[in-house]
Amino acid sequence: MNMEEIIRIKREGGVLTPSELKYFVRGYVAGEIPDYQVSALLMAIYFQKLTDTETAELTNLMRYSGDTVDLREIPGVKVDKHSTGGVGDKTTLIAAPIAASAGIPVAKMSGRGLGFTGGTIDKLQSIPGFRTALSPAEFIEQVKNIGISIIGQSGNLTPADKKLYALRDVTATVDDKSLIAASIMSKKLAAGSDAVVLDVKCGKGAFMKTLEDARTLSRLMVDIGAYAGKKTIAVISDMNQPLGCAVGNALEVREAVEILKGRGPSDIRELSIKLAGIMIYAGKAAASIDEGCEMAESAILSGAALDKFRELIKAQGGMPEVCDDTDLLALSDKQIEVHSEFEGYVNEIDGEKVGLASQHTGAGRVTKDDEVDHGAGILLNKKVGDFVRRGELLATVFSSDLDKAESAEREVIKSYRIGDGKAGEMMLIKDII
Amino acid sequence: MNMEEIIRIKREGGVLTPSELKYFVRGYVAGEIPDYQVSALLMAIYFQKLTDTETAELTNLMRYSGDTVDLREIPGVKVDKHSTGGVGDKTTLIAAPIAASAGIPVAKMSGRGLGFTGGTIDKLQSIPGFRTALSPAEFIEQVKNIGISIIGQSGNLTPADKKLYALRDVTATVDDKSLIAASIMSKKLAAGSDAVVLDVKCGKGAFMKTLEDARTLSRLMVDIGAYAGKKTIAVISDMNQPLGCAVGNALEVREAVEILKGRGPSDIRELSIKLAGIMIYAGKAAASIDEGCEMAESAILSGAALDKFRELIKAQGGMPEVCDDTDLLALSDKQIEVHSEFEGYVNEIDGEKVGLASQHTGAGRVTKDDEVDHGAGILLNKKVGDFVRRGELLATVFSSDLDKAESAEREVIKSYRIGDGKAGEMMLIKDII
Repeated sequence: MNMEEIIRIKREGGVLTPSELKYFVRGYVAGEIPDYQVSALLMAIYFQKLTDTETAELTNLMRYSGDTVDLREIPGVKVDKHSTGGVGDKTTLIAAPIAASAGIPVAKMSGRGLGFTGGTIDKLQSIPGFRTALSPAEFIEQVKNIGISIIGQSGNLTPADKKLYALRDVTATVDDKSLIAASIMSKKLAAGSDAVVLDVKCGKGAFMKTLEDARTLSRLMVDIGAYAGKKTIAVISDMNQPLGCAVGNALEVREAVEILKGRGPSDIRELSIKLAGIMIYAGKAAASIDEGCEMAESAILSGAALDKFRELIKAQGGMPEVCDDTDLLALSDKQIEVHSEFEGYVNEIDGEKVGLASQHTGAGRVTKDDEVDHGAGILLNKKVGDFVRRGELLATVFSSDLDKAESAEREVIKSYRIGDGKAGEMMLIKDII
Repeated sequence: MNMEEIIRIKREGGVLTPSELKYFVRGYVAGEIPDYQVSALLMAIYFQKLTDTETAELTNLMRYSGDTVDLREIPGVKVDKHSTGGVGDKTTLIAAPIAASAGIPVAKMSGRGLGFTGGTIDKLQSIPGFRTALSPAEFIEQVKNIGISIIGQSGNLTPADKKLYALRDVTATVDDKSLIAASIMSKKLAAGSDAVVLDVKCGKGAFMKTLEDARTLSRLMVDIGAYAGKKTIAVISDMNQPLGCAVGNALEVREAVEILKGRGPSDIRELSIKLAGIMIYAGKAAASIDEGCEMAESAILSGAALDKFRELIKAQGGMPEVCDDTDLLALSDKQIEVHSEFEGYVNEIDGEKVGLASQHTGAGRVTKDDEVDHGAGILLNKKVGDFVRRGELLATVFSSDLDKAESAEREVIKSYRIGDGKAGEMMLIKDII
């Protein structure tokens, strides 16, 4: 067996055997197969595709390419949640405590953000004192005690995925659905939960531009989960504008608390409840998704979800009082109000531009060693469908640096498209697979 | 401009601009663009193809990526000749002196062989004393004086091609016709002649398996030549068995001398005369290819061609007496006769197996640092269409090592397919483009 032959087989549209896939993944992680052969194979895969079986095998090889998390000590059906990424997406901060309050153990490892906005871990770190680095034993113990823990990724999980992703990123081979599915699912499977709920974003600001693409990717991931014996459910949600009004770290935690109090923007509330409901269903505490969603709503109404979030913060050394007084989540002191130059309906808010604006404020990283400014970000005052008068407040920019705030302001202005007609109502949740 | 974007454009089937191609070729040669991005681009090219204009531009960039040879000092239309490679192909040793004897200046740089058999330079080095390393000034002076010089490649010609070829070789991206055409033609154009005659092999033992593929490759190369303002003519010749009877170095020079004397196997004679005739026509010493071929035959009959070969050998320090007594071209002392186990007609001689046998004898290199055994090789006694009795001599193996000779013997036996019916006459020259 040799790599050139493996490339040739795929180039000719052949199917790689499990042992050929193993030869390639193991050899690559071991540094025995060079990047230039792997990138040629990835491009051949881009054109010839992987079969479902190849995709499942590749996922499995990536899953076991490094450390894996063992959650078997924790009783119950552990449910993980993953989003393909969106600007303003703080659903983990909301859905995880809701599901935990309904008895679903949530042992979640999250990444730091690289790109437009911070990741879940960056957001949690805006809570004074919150520790995101627990030992594996502390992590498991906490889930056993209070049913929830959210920590930063530790250990050497899925090194094959890390290496392959870095290579795909610079060789125009990122956007192959099989490779995306294998990448996401290998990480989820290595993280040890029994079921996985996926939030697949769809639309202009997302990786999957069309509903059809999002459905294909979702089916691939659900099939991979099934192949690995883990119940996997995917929600396809719209990403044609940022989710909610807050984009940043402290700003997003503030909004998450609002949602857990039964307030806040309707889009982020609707999606969080749906995800939490599916988590409850996947964790077998509800007989249907609808019942799960009802339980999620009740957990908000009763205050149980917010209590669980409070408990989570306290257990990880954070200041639980932020749940009662969100002003304890400090915002950056340089603030610029962005006012509308036009009158009309907001037809579009370009999520990518808002994300870029958020990165400009310091809320996101440009390189992985950058420090995140937890108090920075964007607060949208108008969303798609809202009517705006000339001079009315569109958004507020927060940063600890005035130059950065101004550069973000320019991006925010560019992100809004205001027109005469009111855009038709958009359906946030497009499908469940 | 960045490489990832260039890969993406080609991946999507777009056309690369001259400046994008320049960015890629220059950056790659300068070591600024890594192999892994280039191999992804090459695979995208494999699937999406290059347009004729892209191919011509790429060729041009490769041509000028390093040193180029300037032959303008030599008067007349200088004609170069190239073969896509075949076992037993010694046409350069024959066609070049013929063309030179007809007044066409031949200033030829040849490569060493890497693979089954030696290259033209290895073959010439089997002539005692023959120097293949002349300075550029000596090289040009000799062509001015006697109309011919054949030397080893010197200087840093087409480094872009060298780097790309090495990468293609290990990433299953060799067999794209545009890339093959660009590779061959960049070298020919950098070598400075005014016209190029190409011998494109076609058939089982060749890179181009079908006549259609050979025609496509030929047209591509002829078009590239035209784009660069150099008359280019391609002969498509059959490669379903080794060319002539001799495979090796000294063995092939012996056969070349035989042909120049008007003797020897008909296939190598026919092809050599055709190539020489086309060289004479391309060099404007004949009004048509047919007239060129007649002049080539006359040059053999009159002895002018052999005289020119003698002159070439003498000018480069070799022993011209080999033209009168080919026994001066020493053969290896371990010789094994291969006898037929069957009776019937030779239906096929697998050129690849004979090539491998030749490599086993020591006549070819396995790695580029290997020494070539000039006296080693295979002499075929039977060719396709010949009738063989059981026990009759099929071929003789020459090597300076008995083990090597025995291992070659086994390959030679495997290369012959002998059957009841006589195979139909094969046409050696299939097309001229």
